[in-house]
Amino acid sequence: MILNPDETALVLIEFQNDFTTDGGALHGAVSDVMERSGMLANAITAVDQARQAGATIIHAPISFTKGYGELGANPYGILAGVVASNAFVKGSWGAEIVADLAPAAGDIVVEGKRGLDAFMSTNLDFILRAKGIRNVALSGFLTNCCVESTMRTAYEKGFNVFTLTDCVAATSQEEHDNAIAKDYPMFSHPVVSKEFVATIGGEAKLTDSSRGYTT
Amino acid sequence: MILNPDETALVLIEFQNDFTTDGGALHGAVSDVMERSGMLANAITAVDQARQAGATIIHAPISFTKGYGELGANPYGILAGVVASNAFVKGSWGAEIVADLAPAAGDIVVEGKRGLDAFMSTNLDFILRAKGIRNVALSGFLTNCCVESTMRTAYEKGFNVFTLTDCVAATSQEEHDNAIAKDYPMFSHPVVSKEFVATIGGEAKLTDSSRGYTT
Amino acid sequence: MILNPDETALVLIEFQNDFTTDGGALHGAVSDVMERSGMLANAITAVDQARQAGATIIHAPISFTKGYGELGANPYGILAGVVASNAFVKGSWGAEIVADLAPAAGDIVVEGKRGLDAFMSTNLDFILRAKGIRNVALSGFLTNCCVESTMRTAYEKGFNVFTLTDCVAATSQEEHDNAIAKDYPMFSHPVVSKEFVATIGGEAKLTDSSRGYTT
Amino acid sequence: MILNPDETALVLIEFQNDFTTDGGALHGAVSDVMERSGMLANAITAVDQARQAGATIIHAPISFTKGYGELGANPYGILAGVVASNAFVKGSWGAEIVADLAPAAGDIVVEGKRGLDAFMSTNLDFILRAKGIRNVALSGFLTNCCVESTMRTAYEKGFNVFTLTDCVAATSQEEHDNAIAKDYPMFSHPVVSKEFVATIGGEAKLTDSSRGYTT
Repeated sequence: MILNPDETALVLIEFQNDFTTDGGALHGAVSDVMERSGMLANAITAVDQARQAGATIIHAPISFTKGYGELGANPYGILAGVVASNAFVKGSWGAEIVADLAPAAGDIVVEGKRGLDAFMSTNLDFILRAKGIRNVALSGFLTNCCVESTMRTAYEKGFNVFTLTDCVAATSQEEHDNAIAKDYPMFSHPVVSKEFVATIGGEAKLTDSSRGYTT
Repeated sequence: MILNPDETALVLIEFQNDFTTDGGALHGAVSDVMERSGMLANAITAVDQARQAGATIIHAPISFTKGYGELGANPYGILAGVVASNAFVKGSWGAEIVADLAPAAGDIVVEGKRGLDAFMSTNLDFILRAKGIRNVALSGFLTNCCVESTMRTAYEKGFNVFTLTDCVAATSQEEHDNAIAKDYPMFSHPVVSKEFVATIGGEAKLTDSSRGYTT
Repeated sequence: MILNPDETALVLIEFQNDFTTDGGALHGAVSDVMERSGMLANAITAVDQARQAGATIIHAPISFTKGYGELGANPYGILAGVVASNAFVKGSWGAEIVADLAPAAGDIVVEGKRGLDAFMSTNLDFILRAKGIRNVALSGFLTNCCVESTMRTAYEKGFNVFTLTDCVAATSQEEHDNAIAKDYPMFSHPVVSKEFVATIGGEAKLTDSSRGYTT
Repeated sequence: MILNPDETALVLIEFQNDFTTDGGALHGAVSDVMERSGMLANAITAVDQARQAGATIIHAPISFTKGYGELGANPYGILAGVVASNAFVKGSWGAEIVADLAPAAGDIVVEGKRGLDAFMSTNLDFILRAKGIRNVALSGFLTNCCVESTMRTAYEKGFNVFTLTDCVAATSQEEHDNAIAKDYPMFSHPVVSKEFVATIGGEAKLTDSSRGYTT
């Protein structure tokens, strides 16, 4: 498998202070898994190298206006959790992309994200299609929430999907490990970031680690 | 037909200086139809009254980063026209919503719009669904481009669609008249704005002016 | 512009007896425009040649179970017209694809079409993406209804869209002519079928006839 | 929470012989989890009672033409698994809906399913919207594949989503348990089928068992 840089994008999902940084509304919920894997440092390195290799870097932050007027009066599930934690409020420090991954010239910042799946409430698909991108690598938060939903939809949309297993984090190690072991191989090529980045431009050979119905 | 205000939204498509205002990149292309219909003044009145009646006001502006990096290298069709006219550049005066229709507190500004259809590259559907909105009234530019694409998709998505025929404009009277006479009735209830606004809250009775296969 | 046959599909929208054939529920509504343009004969020739050139032929019929249980109790607009004419009932002769365009081995029949846009209620996008198709040529009924909605969405989805102007028909010559002259160039390359087919495999050169904001 | 029967649907995902029945291509992969939970018997009872209560029963089978021509030449992930097992071939016994859950008059059979998410390649969303359905209960195969993808998208689309935890099965108990414990509560109200069915028509009261960021 050779990845043409012009057809390859690295998507960064919710690398925002509320997740990434001490004092962020939800940092405490993910800090344990983040520390064990070193996912933030790994992502910073992967972005630098992918950018140099000519891939497109795409940032997919989530945000809401103060008061969460985009949602109904009584959300349930994970969006209720966003509201309850007062996270990702537009204009707040918590909603800002973490400084070490601040968008560079030429990067694209996807707009609109209110839901979990980075496709369903944004211009991500429009931009990927307009630019002729076929290979999509995913990273960010949570391993089994937004990253997983985005992976599942990217697969349905016919992209060649990669999940960077050392650049994601969840609220528990158990959920994190399970998603990577069981769900990621059904809808993507799970790969560590170094191996993925080395493949851009065709320098390395990726083993297909995706799975069918066998475990 | 009675419209519950909580389930009703008025969507304003691209009321931005590049279309609406002298000096805007594309104002010359639409000024003739705008003047004949008085669509800007009509929309201002409709928005005031719909807001008072308790409907949700939704703004759907289009914009691109300088250089149009969200598009491929060689766009064709109407997006090539956007690039050629250097219109709707993020941060420019031309991309700003016209002052007379500036978003008020409680209004929602849809994000992400890069394509023509206000659903395909935005969070419009997510927000409408999250808020339980069933009735969607459309206005703006162009009668037979963005407004028409949005109408067609809103109809497919099962909304009760209204097209405010005195609040839209196109690049020629012929296209404008044809879209309203022939295409709008297949996918919406075409109606003048006064009649639509009076229906919010159930004060008036709308005639169904939609059509099937007969002309 | 050179079209790789492996990346090219010809989509046939609703070439079903209810439209195409004497005795069909809606044939009377389109027979005048069909006869003037010879669109059925043109489509038959185009399909033969596109198939020989290696392009994928995709059929997109519409159908409903008897009683139209897939729709709500009170449809409006063009779907009300379908119900009123008792057209496209699953299992009926009227819903069958016209014999002269019956699917051949290797053709694909898109499933699910209940709405107008051939993308919104079907597996069309899934199949196009899975097969790596980039160029989509559209034909069928109606020029300004299903074909136009499909064209608009295909453009948003980043396909290289062609509209075969001699392989479409509407309920009036006026609507047909207007859609082709005004709307098709915003969202596609309008082209006669002979020119399109000759371009598959790179034998001919297509002029870009798409338009921006000028008429 | 009261569920209006007219606004409530029970969706049956891939209750087809290839999964449900001895001799089915993939039955061996799921039989262990099926037996432990009695999910087939539970689903049969739930369907009977939901139908009597006036809810809409929706069947969402997956199928492919012989040769899997709807897919590209080299699928990966779970679709490669479908091809490798020669499962769900149109016209085969394996692709048939299991006899005990055969569609009854008034049920709806969703068409087009080629991918995993029951929304992405079908007319499911179109039909739900057209019929005014707001509450969607999910059941079927696999707990962490098609059912989970469908749940995630249904949540994004603003439906009130229920997952019937005793009417789903996976290829291992571990994956099954993990999906229900960790992922389902983020995007749905997990509930046993008896409790859900009793809630249709408002006879019972459901506890909200959905979760935010806490485990």
